Amino acid sequence: MHWKIGLIGFGNVGKAFIKLYSEMKDYWLEKYGLSASFYYIITSRGGVIKNESIDIEQLLSAARPTGRLDSFHGWKDGLTFSEAIHQSSINLLVEVSPTAIKNNGEPAATTIATALRSNISVATGNKAPFLFHYRELHELARKNNLLLGIGCTTGAALPSVNFGTYALAGSKITKIEGILNGVCNFILTRMEEKSISFDQALREAQARGIAETDPAYDIDGWDTAAKIIIISNTLIGTNLTLKSIAVEGIRNITPDLILQSRNAQKRIKLTGFTEIAGNIIRAGVSLKEFDSSSTLYNVMGTRKVIIYYTEPAGQFIVEGGASSPAGAAYSLWRDIINWHTQPQTR
Amino acid sequence: MHWKIGLIGFGNVGKAFIKLYSEMKDYWLEKYGLSASFYYIITSRGGVIKNESIDIEQLLSAARPTGRLDSFHGWKDGLTFSEAIHQSSINLLVEVSPTAIKNNGEPAATTIATALRSNISVATGNKAPFLFHYRELHELARKNNLLLGIGCTTGAALPSVNFGTYALAGSKITKIEGILNGVCNFILTRMEEKSISFDQALREAQARGIAETDPAYDIDGWDTAAKIIIISNTLIGTNLTLKSIAVEGIRNITPDLILQSRNAQKRIKLTGFTEIAGNIIRAGVSLKEFDSSSTLYNVMGTRKVIIYYTEPAGQFIVEGGASSPAGAAYSLWRDIINWHTQPQTR
Repeated sequence: MHWKIGLIGFGNVGKAFIKLYSEMKDYWLEKYGLSASFYYIITSRGGVIKNESIDIEQLLSAARPTGRLDSFHGWKDGLTFSEAIHQSSINLLVEVSPTAIKNNGEPAATTIATALRSNISVATGNKAPFLFHYRELHELARKNNLLLGIGCTTGAALPSVNFGTYALAGSKITKIEGILNGVCNFILTRMEEKSISFDQALREAQARGIAETDPAYDIDGWDTAAKIIIISNTLIGTNLTLKSIAVEGIRNITPDLILQSRNAQKRIKLTGFTEIAGNIIRAGVSLKEFDSSSTLYNVMGTRKVIIYYTEPAGQFIVEGGASSPAGAAYSLWRDIINWHTQPQTR
Repeated sequence: MHWKIGLIGFGNVGKAFIKLYSEMKDYWLEKYGLSASFYYIITSRGGVIKNESIDIEQLLSAARPTGRLDSFHGWKDGLTFSEAIHQSSINLLVEVSPTAIKNNGEPAATTIATALRSNISVATGNKAPFLFHYRELHELARKNNLLLGIGCTTGAALPSVNFGTYALAGSKITKIEGILNGVCNFILTRMEEKSISFDQALREAQARGIAETDPAYDIDGWDTAAKIIIISNTLIGTNLTLKSIAVEGIRNITPDLILQSRNAQKRIKLTGFTEIAGNIIRAGVSLKEFDSSSTLYNVMGTRKVIIYYTEPAGQFIVEGGASSPAGAAYSLWRDIINWHTQPQTR
């Protein structure tokens, strides 16, 4: 199958998604028989659309000076997905507009549902739709035998949904626990290492480009919550939403608390977790103290780690994957490639 | 597809393979639509064969007192695979007879090739055939569109071949390094913790059932070599054999060497590795010193860890999976389930 792609979102991840294809296409064609072309690219202010496929080398170099596409041939002010879908026929929508959790998952939820109803597969890094409409979107994809690739939403290149699907196939997950947000873990690490306040550590994270100017989504635990919800719903079949779990953040951590923990040879970490015992599911985001014998104690800086407790396969610890736009872009392609190489029976 | 299984090997892993199906069958049927029955079970002295499927509950309880099957209905002294294959029609051979690396992979290599040529899928925990005939067997399975599940050979439940196939799909592996043998790592750990000699630590490992009475396969590095060869050949497409790589063991490690390392805040570990730089492949099994900042330094006791260095997905660390007959049995079923849910395009 040749992938005819429409892309929504031309930020760092959108650009990296195109660039990665340009770099890897010969290898992927040879190894997986995978080829792709791009038919439209939609940004918040309009987009590029063509009848024939877009020359991605020209496009990337046109975007280089300003990061924008509005001088590129084929640009239309105010172009939206609902117009583009009628003008150009694609079989894969890549949706990487920013996660906005305030609006019930819209407009991305409707965009993705529209694509799936139009027989278009979807790969996305946008968490919002799956915090409110996971089951409905999943059902739509399953019914139409389409890819709905959401690995990017749960830690980018960190194998989470992917790991649970393949490496744990046939095993029952009894508990998932992880450090899933690099910003929080970086701040907690710096507070301990340099005996500084939360505000000082946050400013350092912002200065380094690790934390956003508006850091609430990360430091109040929403990013971790979103990830644990999507991982649980996908792998365990729960139906968790943002409203159904308790979410803690790290704003109230003081240097005193950090010091107390250190004196007890422990560390405070922000974890996302889901635990299943019989029919009871406990899930949430909370601050926990770990002693030095536990795996999560040793996870420092922006590192992310996820631990799966399973029966009968035992306990698994997974860490890594590039934490960058290229890593996020890779995780979208990973879902596409895994689908491409064995699509028929899903 | 209903799996009609013939089993070769009724040791701990063979028994656990049947037992696990008995425990999980309702869950697997519901979740994956997977069902299976057993038509013959072959041991070193003969086997059980039936025209109808074997009642596995009766079989397991008959085997409980002695571990043997020779009083079970359907037993035939001296039954071999080449007879059984003509008497009963199966579509999956599970080969879990012991790895014997001295005989060029035989007789298991011929058994597996015969199955594949007869349109029978194979899942196996036997490393020997793949140390000598990897490419030929892989080609045979690919050509006939059959499962050749070898995940069990490379660390049982530890996701190695599996992880590389799915979690690293589309990424290029540049280096693999791991602590792949629990016996060696246990001995090195004990020598450090208790300041004892190699012989003392080995005896402790044997007393605990971790090391075999004849420990050469583990402590001379052959088990690690076999795993790194199979992982590399499968994931990187190398054509390594036991003859083409240098293999070190741990017999010559003295308490003095351990002490020197400890004084330098380092630890000696036995690692398997493959590194690719351009067209040059370096692979082997060797003793290396790691300092406390490295992941492998912290891997103690019987734990196993594998690190993947990839482009563009970055670095991944994977640890875990039950290290037991049940874990090994699970890894066979994992390969079968992953194939069962998406078989057509391989």
